[in-house]
Amino acid sequence: MVDPRASVTLVAKGLPASPGAATGEAVFDADEAEALAHEGRKVILIRPETSPEDFHGIVAAQAVITARGGMTSHAAVVARGMGKTCVVGAKDIEVDPAAGRLRANGRVVKWGQLITVDGTTGRVLLGAAKLVEPKLGSHYVKLMAWADEHRRLRVRANADTPGDAKRAREFGAEGVGLCRTEHMFFEGDRITAMREMIVAPDEAGRRRALAKLLPMQREDFEGIFEAMAGHPVTIRLLDPPLHEFLPHGKDEVGALARAMKLPAVRLERLVASLVEANPMLGHRGCRLGITYPEITEMQARAIFEAACRVVSRGKKVTVEVMIPLVALVEELRRQTEIVRRVAREVFQAEGRAVPYLVGTMIELPRAALTADEIAKDAEFFSFGTNDLTQTTFGLSRDDAGRFLPFYVEHGILKDDPFQVLDQEGVGKLIELAVRLGRGTRADLKIGICGEHGGEPASVKFCHHVGMNYVSCSPFRVPIARLAAAQAALEEQGVINRTRATV
Amino acid sequence: MVDPRASVTLVAKGLPASPGAATGEAVFDADEAEALAHEGRKVILIRPETSPEDFHGIVAAQAVITARGGMTSHAAVVARGMGKTCVVGAKDIEVDPAAGRLRANGRVVKWGQLITVDGTTGRVLLGAAKLVEPKLGSHYVKLMAWADEHRRLRVRANADTPGDAKRAREFGAEGVGLCRTEHMFFEGDRITAMREMIVAPDEAGRRRALAKLLPMQREDFEGIFEAMAGHPVTIRLLDPPLHEFLPHGKDEVGALARAMKLPAVRLERLVASLVEANPMLGHRGCRLGITYPEITEMQARAIFEAACRVVSRGKKVTVEVMIPLVALVEELRRQTEIVRRVAREVFQAEGRAVPYLVGTMIELPRAALTADEIAKDAEFFSFGTNDLTQTTFGLSRDDAGRFLPFYVEHGILKDDPFQVLDQEGVGKLIELAVRLGRGTRADLKIGICGEHGGEPASVKFCHHVGMNYVSCSPFRVPIARLAAAQAALEEQGVINRTRATV
Repeated sequence: MVDPRASVTLVAKGLPASPGAATGEAVFDADEAEALAHEGRKVILIRPETSPEDFHGIVAAQAVITARGGMTSHAAVVARGMGKTCVVGAKDIEVDPAAGRLRANGRVVKWGQLITVDGTTGRVLLGAAKLVEPKLGSHYVKLMAWADEHRRLRVRANADTPGDAKRAREFGAEGVGLCRTEHMFFEGDRITAMREMIVAPDEAGRRRALAKLLPMQREDFEGIFEAMAGHPVTIRLLDPPLHEFLPHGKDEVGALARAMKLPAVRLERLVASLVEANPMLGHRGCRLGITYPEITEMQARAIFEAACRVVSRGKKVTVEVMIPLVALVEELRRQTEIVRRVAREVFQAEGRAVPYLVGTMIELPRAALTADEIAKDAEFFSFGTNDLTQTTFGLSRDDAGRFLPFYVEHGILKDDPFQVLDQEGVGKLIELAVRLGRGTRADLKIGICGEHGGEPASVKFCHHVGMNYVSCSPFRVPIARLAAAQAALEEQGVINRTRATV
Repeated sequence: MVDPRASVTLVAKGLPASPGAATGEAVFDADEAEALAHEGRKVILIRPETSPEDFHGIVAAQAVITARGGMTSHAAVVARGMGKTCVVGAKDIEVDPAAGRLRANGRVVKWGQLITVDGTTGRVLLGAAKLVEPKLGSHYVKLMAWADEHRRLRVRANADTPGDAKRAREFGAEGVGLCRTEHMFFEGDRITAMREMIVAPDEAGRRRALAKLLPMQREDFEGIFEAMAGHPVTIRLLDPPLHEFLPHGKDEVGALARAMKLPAVRLERLVASLVEANPMLGHRGCRLGITYPEITEMQARAIFEAACRVVSRGKKVTVEVMIPLVALVEELRRQTEIVRRVAREVFQAEGRAVPYLVGTMIELPRAALTADEIAKDAEFFSFGTNDLTQTTFGLSRDDAGRFLPFYVEHGILKDDPFQVLDQEGVGKLIELAVRLGRGTRADLKIGICGEHGGEPASVKFCHHVGMNYVSCSPFRVPIARLAAAQAALEEQGVINRTRATV
């Protein structure tokens, strides 16, 4: 947040579309935002309004400002979805992308000039305003203590690195509900080893590259287990399509080809061959682990070796291995077999065992519809409500910007279903899956790890359908704790339902 | 089929992956297949095996031959899906794409040489073998008469043109279950008007372009109504994303820009802005009609004007207007309002009324889950099981080639769910939607128009859940009639279930 005691110079005011604060260089084009961010510079993307073509620029920027658009405009929806600071509808701002400047209330901000965005109040400020970590005072501590006393739902956080996991603990998370292992593959040497794995012509080549990834992944898991101090950690195996790890421009492909001593034309063909018409619905999730079981093996080995090391230092570890994008119980069964076999091998080699569960994401309608079958092989369910919303609605989140804001503005949808769980549709599948799953396995542990896990109305829904926990981004953990307590008190009739909105 | 009395020269034999017969020039590359087909030449695509990169070549070719692969290989699955003749696993063939030739059993076939593919028997023949229309003898007529006597399900055909509709009648179709209006926009002048509509900067521009499309579309509808002679015709409003109608290469975009007197750079930007990350889940179906209601208006006008003209010639017409890709009842409600308003306007102007229904595709899980709500505004349901399978499984048909054949070969899936309806998952949604829909509207007319409508096991499922009709490609109508009769007789215990496979 912007230090409330700092003196600031207001450029303009807009709608507080996504909270937080950030400082960076003003840029007026998504490609430029991406290019500068790539060089390590912090940028603020400023546009008259955004559209899906600006998506990569929003990803790259510290914050986003638009002159037009409301709380459900493209920029607002996308930025909130990413937890990125954003101010929209700053009507006094005249943006001139071609000239690389904005005018507002008699001031001019040029390309490269430092500005600060305060997404909590909707202010655009000149220069680098002083930012501070928001303070959590004694009222907060007392409120949270009351909430924790009354809630039944556990609250975990989504955390991909040891740093995330530490922050999650500070916000009161009682475990990691989603650790996305692919984020570990994007940095430095790791992306190179990952790319070697993808371009390898055979299993032996893939195994050689995976062997390089193993120690890096193990190290991250150790850090997360340490930070979580015995609280459960749910690790999702590799999920995204392999194409996401490959370079795309001609120059980048050429550089990689040279580094890998491959003919550039062969690599180009390979990169092209991995392009998918609908990558959301393509060769990803457990489909990767089924066609390349050696990936699942490596990840399971890294998980269990890390767990054994942390336990050997006298600490407690609770591991939950999560198989993503399951549509068929047979997929889960085959992946579970690999995980359990590797666990046995590691425990035997290390001379110790660590308790663990194997479970699955429920993120496809078919998994929810056949949850009774799937529960035969799953020790826990975690609802991946982002993907479940995409498939239930037949709606790509990346492409929804063209019509979803229109739908919300014109009352066709009350809320953006990626923000507030659609209880009538997606919720019906969740209720069905909870009922079917517990019918097969009465003690089935059930949680949610989509972004809805930190949205109050959705958290209450999770309480009412009988989930065990919700998991959300670390910053939203306090909101989830409060909403969970409200749900419990509402159920007991202690507080009135209509007033119980966070 | 190849004339059984013709003398032929066998080049090689493979697996009969997709029935039919075709003659064309041998080509060994998908790009070349596409380029030659574009010039109006008939080609046969020959590959060692196919992968998703060959997709456009398969589309362009008359038939496909592969040296490797089984009945569930990429080529086999894709070709069967399209109803295209295909022979796979012709093991004696050595394909040399670089040299542009194949060798088999001592013979050489070079690039451009005429060959014939017999997909019914798996034969590859030298030269242009004599092809004949398969004869439907008196046994066929008698069998079909028996089937028609016993079946309860109506059988319709999917037909997009007056020619398709005539052929459908010849095969005994009792109506058109799916008329895809977008296919009407791809030919000649039409694509130009369509592109003008897409690039128009405002509603007035779109309306000018739509006015050019109206008479062409009306003319096609007249032909289809005439051919169907009073049998119901279900017309689906525009469904695919607009990007599919635009040119893609730089040269083509340049040519279009000149024709439209637009700066090429502006058109390029527009084409790029319409690219979607997951077009299957993007701005398509009724989402187009919601954001551009003038498209729905034009299509409704063309439908009702055509119906009035045919009725004025003393013929009967039964119209069913179908709103695609509905996820929310509110989408259907708003589109239905437009259709009914235009119908009133046309009937008033023409001084006559034509009976019609307005209904919807059920092709998204959310539509099935909320079918009770949707039935309030829908007079019929038609299950679009292709898309419903894609969304229920989270599986893009275009991308499934990388792992679906593996799944079927390794027993993870018993059948390709795009060929044989997945009764455990997708079927569960269908049963739910039928129950919910009829709960709201007891006389709700229900059918299926995905490719499963012509697959025997799936047809029987449709019978058992109480649908009114199935609709499939014209060639599959006899199979559907037979399967429908078997389902009825099985239900009565007249024939044994296990023997009753077509």
